[in-house]
Amino acid sequence: MDANSLRKLMEQVRAGRLSPDEAVSRLRHMPFEDLGFAKIDHHRRLRAGMPEVIFSQGKTPAQVGQIFKRMAAHGGNVLATKADPLHFRAVRKLVRKAEYRELARAVILQQDAERYGKGTVAVISAGTSDIPAAEEAVVTAEVMGNEVAHLYDVGVAGIHRLLLNKKVLENARVVIVCAGMEGALPSVVGGLVSVPVIAVPTSVGYGASFSGLAALLGMLNSCASNVSVVNIDNGFGAGYVASMINRL
Amino acid sequence: MDANSLRKLMEQVRAGRLSPDEAVSRLRHMPFEDLGFAKIDHHRRLRAGMPEVIFSQGKTPAQVGQIFKRMAAHGGNVLATKADPLHFRAVRKLVRKAEYRELARAVILQQDAERYGKGTVAVISAGTSDIPAAEEAVVTAEVMGNEVAHLYDVGVAGIHRLLLNKKVLENARVVIVCAGMEGALPSVVGGLVSVPVIAVPTSVGYGASFSGLAALLGMLNSCASNVSVVNIDNGFGAGYVASMINRL
Amino acid sequence: MDANSLRKLMEQVRAGRLSPDEAVSRLRHMPFEDLGFAKIDHHRRLRAGMPEVIFSQGKTPAQVGQIFKRMAAHGGNVLATKADPLHFRAVRKLVRKAEYRELARAVILQQDAERYGKGTVAVISAGTSDIPAAEEAVVTAEVMGNEVAHLYDVGVAGIHRLLLNKKVLENARVVIVCAGMEGALPSVVGGLVSVPVIAVPTSVGYGASFSGLAALLGMLNSCASNVSVVNIDNGFGAGYVASMINRL
Amino acid sequence: MDANSLRKLMEQVRAGRLSPDEAVSRLRHMPFEDLGFAKIDHHRRLRAGMPEVIFSQGKTPAQVGQIFKRMAAHGGNVLATKADPLHFRAVRKLVRKAEYRELARAVILQQDAERYGKGTVAVISAGTSDIPAAEEAVVTAEVMGNEVAHLYDVGVAGIHRLLLNKKVLENARVVIVCAGMEGALPSVVGGLVSVPVIAVPTSVGYGASFSGLAALLGMLNSCASNVSVVNIDNGFGAGYVASMINRL
Amino acid sequence: MDANSLRKLMEQVRAGRLSPDEAVSRLRHMPFEDLGFAKIDHHRRLRAGMPEVIFSQGKTPAQVGQIFKRMAAHGGNVLATKADPLHFRAVRKLVRKAEYRELARAVILQQDAERYGKGTVAVISAGTSDIPAAEEAVVTAEVMGNEVAHLYDVGVAGIHRLLLNKKVLENARVVIVCAGMEGALPSVVGGLVSVPVIAVPTSVGYGASFSGLAALLGMLNSCASNVSVVNIDNGFGAGYVASMINRL
Amino acid sequence: MDANSLRKLMEQVRAGRLSPDEAVSRLRHMPFEDLGFAKIDHHRRLRAGMPEVIFSQGKTPAQVGQIFKRMAAHGGNVLATKADPLHFRAVRKLVRKAEYRELARAVILQQDAERYGKGTVAVISAGTSDIPAAEEAVVTAEVMGNEVAHLYDVGVAGIHRLLLNKKVLENARVVIVCAGMEGALPSVVGGLVSVPVIAVPTSVGYGASFSGLAALLGMLNSCASNVSVVNIDNGFGAGYVASMINRL
Amino acid sequence: MDANSLRKLMEQVRAGRLSPDEAVSRLRHMPFEDLGFAKIDHHRRLRAGMPEVIFSQGKTPAQVGQIFKRMAAHGGNVLATKADPLHFRAVRKLVRKAEYRELARAVILQQDAERYGKGTVAVISAGTSDIPAAEEAVVTAEVMGNEVAHLYDVGVAGIHRLLLNKKVLENARVVIVCAGMEGALPSVVGGLVSVPVIAVPTSVGYGASFSGLAALLGMLNSCASNVSVVNIDNGFGAGYVASMINRL
Amino acid sequence: MDANSLRKLMEQVRAGRLSPDEAVSRLRHMPFEDLGFAKIDHHRRLRAGMPEVIFSQGKTPAQVGQIFKRMAAHGGNVLATKADPLHFRAVRKLVRKAEYRELARAVILQQDAERYGKGTVAVISAGTSDIPAAEEAVVTAEVMGNEVAHLYDVGVAGIHRLLLNKKVLENARVVIVCAGMEGALPSVVGGLVSVPVIAVPTSVGYGASFSGLAALLGMLNSCASNVSVVNIDNGFGAGYVASMINRL
Repeated sequence: MDANSLRKLMEQVRAGRLSPDEAVSRLRHMPFEDLGFAKIDHHRRLRAGMPEVIFSQGKTPAQVGQIFKRMAAHGGNVLATKADPLHFRAVRKLVRKAEYRELARAVILQQDAERYGKGTVAVISAGTSDIPAAEEAVVTAEVMGNEVAHLYDVGVAGIHRLLLNKKVLENARVVIVCAGMEGALPSVVGGLVSVPVIAVPTSVGYGASFSGLAALLGMLNSCASNVSVVNIDNGFGAGYVASMINRL
Repeated sequence: MDANSLRKLMEQVRAGRLSPDEAVSRLRHMPFEDLGFAKIDHHRRLRAGMPEVIFSQGKTPAQVGQIFKRMAAHGGNVLATKADPLHFRAVRKLVRKAEYRELARAVILQQDAERYGKGTVAVISAGTSDIPAAEEAVVTAEVMGNEVAHLYDVGVAGIHRLLLNKKVLENARVVIVCAGMEGALPSVVGGLVSVPVIAVPTSVGYGASFSGLAALLGMLNSCASNVSVVNIDNGFGAGYVASMINRL
Repeated sequence: MDANSLRKLMEQVRAGRLSPDEAVSRLRHMPFEDLGFAKIDHHRRLRAGMPEVIFSQGKTPAQVGQIFKRMAAHGGNVLATKADPLHFRAVRKLVRKAEYRELARAVILQQDAERYGKGTVAVISAGTSDIPAAEEAVVTAEVMGNEVAHLYDVGVAGIHRLLLNKKVLENARVVIVCAGMEGALPSVVGGLVSVPVIAVPTSVGYGASFSGLAALLGMLNSCASNVSVVNIDNGFGAGYVASMINRL
Repeated sequence: MDANSLRKLMEQVRAGRLSPDEAVSRLRHMPFEDLGFAKIDHHRRLRAGMPEVIFSQGKTPAQVGQIFKRMAAHGGNVLATKADPLHFRAVRKLVRKAEYRELARAVILQQDAERYGKGTVAVISAGTSDIPAAEEAVVTAEVMGNEVAHLYDVGVAGIHRLLLNKKVLENARVVIVCAGMEGALPSVVGGLVSVPVIAVPTSVGYGASFSGLAALLGMLNSCASNVSVVNIDNGFGAGYVASMINRL
Repeated sequence: MDANSLRKLMEQVRAGRLSPDEAVSRLRHMPFEDLGFAKIDHHRRLRAGMPEVIFSQGKTPAQVGQIFKRMAAHGGNVLATKADPLHFRAVRKLVRKAEYRELARAVILQQDAERYGKGTVAVISAGTSDIPAAEEAVVTAEVMGNEVAHLYDVGVAGIHRLLLNKKVLENARVVIVCAGMEGALPSVVGGLVSVPVIAVPTSVGYGASFSGLAALLGMLNSCASNVSVVNIDNGFGAGYVASMINRL
Repeated sequence: MDANSLRKLMEQVRAGRLSPDEAVSRLRHMPFEDLGFAKIDHHRRLRAGMPEVIFSQGKTPAQVGQIFKRMAAHGGNVLATKADPLHFRAVRKLVRKAEYRELARAVILQQDAERYGKGTVAVISAGTSDIPAAEEAVVTAEVMGNEVAHLYDVGVAGIHRLLLNKKVLENARVVIVCAGMEGALPSVVGGLVSVPVIAVPTSVGYGASFSGLAALLGMLNSCASNVSVVNIDNGFGAGYVASMINRL
Repeated sequence: MDANSLRKLMEQVRAGRLSPDEAVSRLRHMPFEDLGFAKIDHHRRLRAGMPEVIFSQGKTPAQVGQIFKRMAAHGGNVLATKADPLHFRAVRKLVRKAEYRELARAVILQQDAERYGKGTVAVISAGTSDIPAAEEAVVTAEVMGNEVAHLYDVGVAGIHRLLLNKKVLENARVVIVCAGMEGALPSVVGGLVSVPVIAVPTSVGYGASFSGLAALLGMLNSCASNVSVVNIDNGFGAGYVASMINRL
Repeated sequence: MDANSLRKLMEQVRAGRLSPDEAVSRLRHMPFEDLGFAKIDHHRRLRAGMPEVIFSQGKTPAQVGQIFKRMAAHGGNVLATKADPLHFRAVRKLVRKAEYRELARAVILQQDAERYGKGTVAVISAGTSDIPAAEEAVVTAEVMGNEVAHLYDVGVAGIHRLLLNKKVLENARVVIVCAGMEGALPSVVGGLVSVPVIAVPTSVGYGASFSGLAALLGMLNSCASNVSVVNIDNGFGAGYVASMINRL
């Protein structure tokens, strides 16, 4: 409800086609309806290519199935993260075209194939064990309409592996770096590129990794200035932020 | 702006005393102005007896002085917490009737002497070193219009001192308990009374008190069900919550 | 009552001005016995509408069943928290009218339907995953004789959902807010109401939520002055404190 | 050194204008020189509008002055962060046009006024005490050639202040949010915008804020998906990342 | 090997019944054998009534069974802590008279019934959930030859329960106090008695108890001067230290 | 003493078989008064040789002086811990015979020279930097009437220094061990003696010693069963507990 | 590709046997191939006796089997750490001569029996529960071609056991010490030898051991100067570092 | 006292030149004297080229001066770490040839110029702020008789700086790497060399570096297998361990 529709309403009142009481009644909830609609408008604009997202962890397969089905009806892409095979099976029964990305532990439905991202999102992982977080980022970025390139197992203890593949980094418009243990890779990558780097600490490691705390602290203290950080194992968040950046 | 004033506006439009454009103009920012005014109304109703509060730490004496003076002009009580003597001196120059409560490190101005609280707020401290936090709670509750009783140095290692003074507890409508070190007093007090207990961990202690962490954790794990907790050394917050409860 | 007044009492007895029975009666509530009896009296007065509470975690179904049965015989309401279906089954065998509140993981017996609370307790949750803690608060407050209103899934990342439902908040005499992850909701709610807010951090989240630590610290540092905090996942404690406040 | 220049070198060898030994000598260090030059090329391209940055903390005024002067000679903008007045005085003696941004604790030299950022960077702070971090972000973004809008003191306990100023957020291409204490503001802002949000936890607070840890954890656990985080008090890093995003 | 046996050896050498080489051979390892024997002597003296102790956790039932049997052959009491029913079954097959103390999770063999402790060891627990740690302390103290009195479920939130049973405390020569959650009981008990108090934090609790950390910190910061602390859930250690004290 | 026996007593008074004074005398130690008076009696008995103790930290010199003087009037020994030279000067003005133990940072007054402890208290320190904590323990034990032996700078990295001085350990009835850094000494000492060992972690160290946390955790996890622990730098507590043990 | 091969290539160009384009094509990837080959050369030199290592945790048996087989084909020794029996079974099917070291949880293939280490690596463990970490170190050092001596269950609470076996320490060229709980053993050992000591904290313990944190902090704060530390339970890392040292 | 001297003693006994009692008397204290002397022998052998070391922090200038002078008299090199200019001045008065290494905060006396180390010790630092720790390592290694090469300011965000200087690394027999902030450099260096790497976390950084904790955790979790770690800012320890390795 913008100034125009509001003016029309006022003119109806002046013209006597709408009683003051009826006008009040329509306007009564305006602040919030307005907020609501603006929100929705805003969201609609924003939502072009934005997946509907379900955080499956802690939900029953039946719940995830029902929500997924309802969201699928909206016509865009749908993404269920942290989903196990039972979640997928429940979704599959209701939404035939849903797929399971096992490494990423994600259920997706591709209904909108448009490229919303302007460039490529590169997803890098330090070790093979970091791949689940990396794949979650990949799937999220893909479902949000991005070209994605990935480069795995290029940890800093074998720095030449990364240098040999610098091309992938240089072609990217935004880079996601997943690393557990000491979490050093984002700093090295940050120094090699001049685009934003989103660091994902993973819970990979043992002992003094304290389930990803070591990697998290390392990344927050990165000596590369172009690095920002998301939660431990939050590949989804990184993919989401990267997609937002890639649309700009 | 409620339904009534809105209806009046509509009637002005119908009567032609207000053009649709003017009405739109008035309503344009309504959601927020409404929110704003409602907020203020709401606040005004709420604010009877609520002090204007300044957190002095990190502000210069001159800044605190200026803000204090501006607030004093509103007519209610004014409270500046975590204020040192220099802050006070700056306030005093501008607001002659301001007083300094040294133990509480608070500057206050009493302009409204009404009792808003229905009963007594009891403030208990475990040791003499906890008195600053306790006094901050006392001053806050007083400035917010409460009868306050206090009982200091009744730590759990001499439990008879507390039991001998149970009367103070039994007469209170809400109890604030300040304790550092092991922070055990709120649990004992919680078991002796049947009113809400607000626990204030203090940073009193050394070594494994970790600046109040030990007391904080102790209070959060209180085996007494009627205990809730505020931040370390946050006597102000406890006094504020207690005042809100005491008005109900 | 010191030696002097005691001697006087004795002299009155000797002089026949006080019968032995009257003397006993006066002494009955003397400090120590007083502590015992007063405690019970006090408790009795307090206990009108207070549920008998069993913390089921770590107890066998048989133990919970037996305790529940014994408590049920006292005639008031009974509440067993953190109870799983096996606990419930054991209780049900012995106490036919016991009910299981699955979301809250609570077994309850309603024998006293009186409203002890003067107003409404509002229970708000940030996400759907916070509902178990919220429901525990709801059940506790209900069993303690309160009108309860609830509002779920109004997390701060979609602030309009909360604003659209401000009514629930404004009608409450005390508000409980449950939130995991960043635990930001109590601050927002605290700014919208002028009644006490009890914050319940939940263990919902992953990675750097550290099982609720992030939410707990956030709530303790709330910039809203009317917020106090209970232990992580302690919906029961919040419901209990709120009930105490609501009786005042 | 690309394929073209390499081919020319080979042709010189074939033509006998360059002996094999001389060719080897030229190529010997190629990997690193190449890396070096590519790096520099790359940097040069990147560096248009990138400030030369000096981290002043722990350096003497004389050191900062010398480095600043040397950098100023390169012709672009220069930025010295975490600088105190003594640092500034030392710089000023050597570089007359240097300015001191007191709130940001930054010394800057503006030699390049071009706008490299495509849109506006919005910088939001929760409280007045968070302004130093916010100002550091503002100065960094400005020195890197961005239009900057700022909005201070809009913490979540008075959510209407933020809503009343939503315009600033909606016009931004990237948003920086600085908050101490519970660090809740980025989640609320994240829910209101559809652009990347960079969260800066500040060390503002006391007690259980643990020098910014509470805010940091809160932000990492943000329920808004478009939020990424930098180190505590790292306004510079946020301004840098935002500038990189704003150039895309 | 003491001075006597050494003198005998020397006399055999002098008498020619032992060649120097044979004597050297016997003495070669003397420093350590001596150390060993002295150690054992020392231990033997000490060991009157000291149980042989097996920490069962992480050992297989077969291992515990074998070690237990070997120790049982020495004639004194034997104690296996942190033992589950399978451990017990394995011990029972080999040592018929072994008993299982289920609450304490201990397997014991009583072969020496002498009272080595001079007075009574009192073991107090705050809640029923703390009983396993308390029982481990009880069993340890009993097996080491002490008279043990215990008092359970006297947590600080119902301080009268403790005061009503002060007799148990007053009769003790050393007191062990087990408490989880806020760990406040040792301070209260410490203030009531004038003998050493050994505090055992237990992992009982949830949320911010952080598996006993809250109780541990509380006890280390006890405002009662006669309290020392052992590891979380270390009922054995407390029973052992108390027994040592009770023999003095 | 229940109502019945109380009534009988009253009847004896009425019948003149018991004078009022005698009745008062019998009632004097009744539960509550008993708590009060018995406490004092008990304390008096206990207090033979117990110092009056002042924790000086956070108190002004004047305050410490006044309290010290008042305590000195009671006739026993007086101990002020964590006292700096200014505290001492203030005490000295009022109590001429007070002495300052500089290393221990303690002010003492010796008015009672009796030996209350039955044996020797040994105080061991790992390094020279741990001596302040050790000396606080020494002074406390001396002022409480114990024979004290000390052995400094016998850290575990030069284990022979300790073994060469085993005599000191073997002659002790109770041992106090002070150590910072890795805090390993109590375990080694615990294995060498068969008496209680009280471990005092000190804040000596840097980096990952985290102000004594490393030593504290080490001592709590001691593999020697006869070790219990007090707070970081709490030499006073260790001396107090040791004195209590040595009186048994 | 070194200077020689490069010169040959140049000579082929000069001689016209190689066209400039072909030469460019060969050199195009030179920087990285060179880096790659140098790396490999370097590795080859280094790798004499270096095992190929697989971190099995988090990999499926099939994956470990395949990688092991591929590595076994290279001819050197192969080591798979943190392997369970299922991993071993999968390896065994493909590589007949693979062995399982159960205590160390390692699968090994010995194809190169040469001694690369110049002296003996001593591996010491404090308790029997530390043996898995110790055995992992032993196996790693053996597979890397070292003479290994081990000494188990020589914890500091029975220091004579260590002293009795000092010979093992004195003969070693480098010493690995594994300890959980308080982690004190490396300091004691460090004081007894004059060679490098590598400390391995283990997660053995409970309560305040915090899964090895206590031992880790203890070792980092060791008062012996010749001690360096690896991650908790990282026997492999210690064995690897020790092997590197022993080759020097 | 070895087998030989023991045999002689026995022969004296057999020959009657020594009575059994005298022999017993001589042997009685053998274990410790033997231990003592062996220790000293051992130390003497070890000490060739080992500096006498004084940890100055917490000692007065006078104390450091006296100890330094006494140590200087032994003839070898002397090293006082963590020394400030006042310490140095006090030393200089007593030992004329002492020098102050300002960056390293070390006072040294070079009396023994022999090279004990067989190769070169390389000391690398990530940033200029890490230089104090690095210089402490350099000075320690030099004073212990090693050839030292250093390479500063080669942090991972500009990886080419390190690669350009790989020569320094490749020539080293042992490498020390000092880094604060994210502490990533040791992993990168570890991957480039095949010799032992000793990592020194420094307290350089702010916010979530938590005074070096981030760097420490990063290094402990290094994905390079040849890395071991010393305490935060412990350049001395790293230099000492490296020296021990370099002598092998």
